[in-house]
Amino acid sequence: MSATSNMLVVGSVARDTIHNPAGTHDHVLGGSAVFAALAGARFVTPRLVGVVGTDFPDAEIAMLKSNGIDVTGLEVVEGDTFHWEGRYSPDLTSRESLKTELNVFADFHPKIPEAFRDTPYVMLGNIHPDLQIEVLDQMREPKLVIADTMNFWIEGTPGPLAKMLERIDVLVINEEEARQLAGTYNIVQVAEKLLQMGPRVAVIKRGEYGALLFEGDEVFSAPAYPVHRVQDPTGAGDSFAGGMLGYLAQKDSIDHTTMRSAIIYGSACASYCVEGISVEKLATVNRAQVDERYGAFANLARFE
Amino acid sequence: MSATSNMLVVGSVARDTIHNPAGTHDHVLGGSAVFAALAGARFVTPRLVGVVGTDFPDAEIAMLKSNGIDVTGLEVVEGDTFHWEGRYSPDLTSRESLKTELNVFADFHPKIPEAFRDTPYVMLGNIHPDLQIEVLDQMREPKLVIADTMNFWIEGTPGPLAKMLERIDVLVINEEEARQLAGTYNIVQVAEKLLQMGPRVAVIKRGEYGALLFEGDEVFSAPAYPVHRVQDPTGAGDSFAGGMLGYLAQKDSIDHTTMRSAIIYGSACASYCVEGISVEKLATVNRAQVDERYGAFANLARFE
Repeated sequence: MSATSNMLVVGSVARDTIHNPAGTHDHVLGGSAVFAALAGARFVTPRLVGVVGTDFPDAEIAMLKSNGIDVTGLEVVEGDTFHWEGRYSPDLTSRESLKTELNVFADFHPKIPEAFRDTPYVMLGNIHPDLQIEVLDQMREPKLVIADTMNFWIEGTPGPLAKMLERIDVLVINEEEARQLAGTYNIVQVAEKLLQMGPRVAVIKRGEYGALLFEGDEVFSAPAYPVHRVQDPTGAGDSFAGGMLGYLAQKDSIDHTTMRSAIIYGSACASYCVEGISVEKLATVNRAQVDERYGAFANLARFE
Repeated sequence: MSATSNMLVVGSVARDTIHNPAGTHDHVLGGSAVFAALAGARFVTPRLVGVVGTDFPDAEIAMLKSNGIDVTGLEVVEGDTFHWEGRYSPDLTSRESLKTELNVFADFHPKIPEAFRDTPYVMLGNIHPDLQIEVLDQMREPKLVIADTMNFWIEGTPGPLAKMLERIDVLVINEEEARQLAGTYNIVQVAEKLLQMGPRVAVIKRGEYGALLFEGDEVFSAPAYPVHRVQDPTGAGDSFAGGMLGYLAQKDSIDHTTMRSAIIYGSACASYCVEGISVEKLATVNRAQVDERYGAFANLARFE
């Protein structure tokens, strides 16, 4: 692990109960901030801001720390940690939420420790856009802000979402939700509309079809790694964004060529994420393995 | 156009009536052999084998000839040409068949002219697998046989389809139909199963998500060109396969590196195809434009 602490992740920290073809996985670690920070930790030592309840296992805290993650911004509040329970379809392409128990997350307002407010690379995980704005209000001129969002906020809080979009650099969003937000189907036109909403860069996540990066006149189409056996897609999108930002933070560069590489590093993290249940694979791969997979992406995409 | 006549295309020649957001396009040129031959004609002078009725316009024959296509294998039979009528969804991602009038195509048995039987590069368009086998029975040791198929044959004629698959080199198939044929979802496992059925190479077409090439241990993920305004997706898959084969025929090579380039050339042809109604765009782009789009694909996929 690098000693560079120039990346901040704010988002949910959760305990997930997942039903999938491999069985039931009860109260395993989850949450957008966790996956993003663990992916970022392949490159730098991310700072994590979030909230958990008193039920949150010490062993998970220890695991995050041993991955080099700075958890001094992780509040512990009386009560239970955010708990999500869901069931995946047999082919793992869709899922149904069975329970969403916000618990201590219901009253979460991110408090950025003074020592974190100059962090240059900031990821706003998929939480209420008002909370994402609260984070930005506490930060001092970050170099790059990446945000994720979802259908829930597109439908429920369009006003705050629009304000948030005006203040970020990179929007990372699922394809279906990108179409919903843009109100059109053609993906080139979708990207044009997203960029008109504020962000300078739009990254559209397409799951097993890879990702598209739109920046100025440049379009980059990143393949997805052909995973032979997907175990658990939970957190893939957050791992993607966290790995992407971690690489940019490590390089301390946001030029377009670095951005393309960052998309591939994010894809590499996401591909490892889905190969294990919860964080079990993502939290144990080392940088050499990430680089090896980067090489596999290069072979996947190469032509003369 | 090159003078190389080392590519043969057998398939349907049709008149299509297409309803889409741009309007109704009545009895425009269509059919798998037409799109494939026109795409191949960007690279070589393909030989076309198919059947039309006496209603088939001379102007269409003249257009095919002016594209360098050898139509001496195009039978003209008393009656009407195969006519398909369909309606596309507003976003052009799905379509509904309104009429499928086989007409003279109902009794079609491909007759390969003696002069065509040594053609090394052969494309079997999406027709009854028994007819695809009839073609192979008439050919003398082709160097590469590419075949397309669809759900109709997977469901209706699995026995003949299995026999056909044992005799071809490259299967080009839509992703959904590949999953149906393989009986599984994960695309890596799908490809493994397809390759066990006979072909040495599997090419899985993913529409706006590009294509995957599986050959031995190699996997190639080709992006799709981000078309700003799709006019008509009819024939995109046939243009892809025809362009791919045309490039291989022109290079007279089937090594893996050439195969990867061929996938991109096929994708370039498909991207032009969808930019016009029927064949209007595909039949008018020149080789320089195809090369220019190849360059755009290279920029789309590049990372360091």
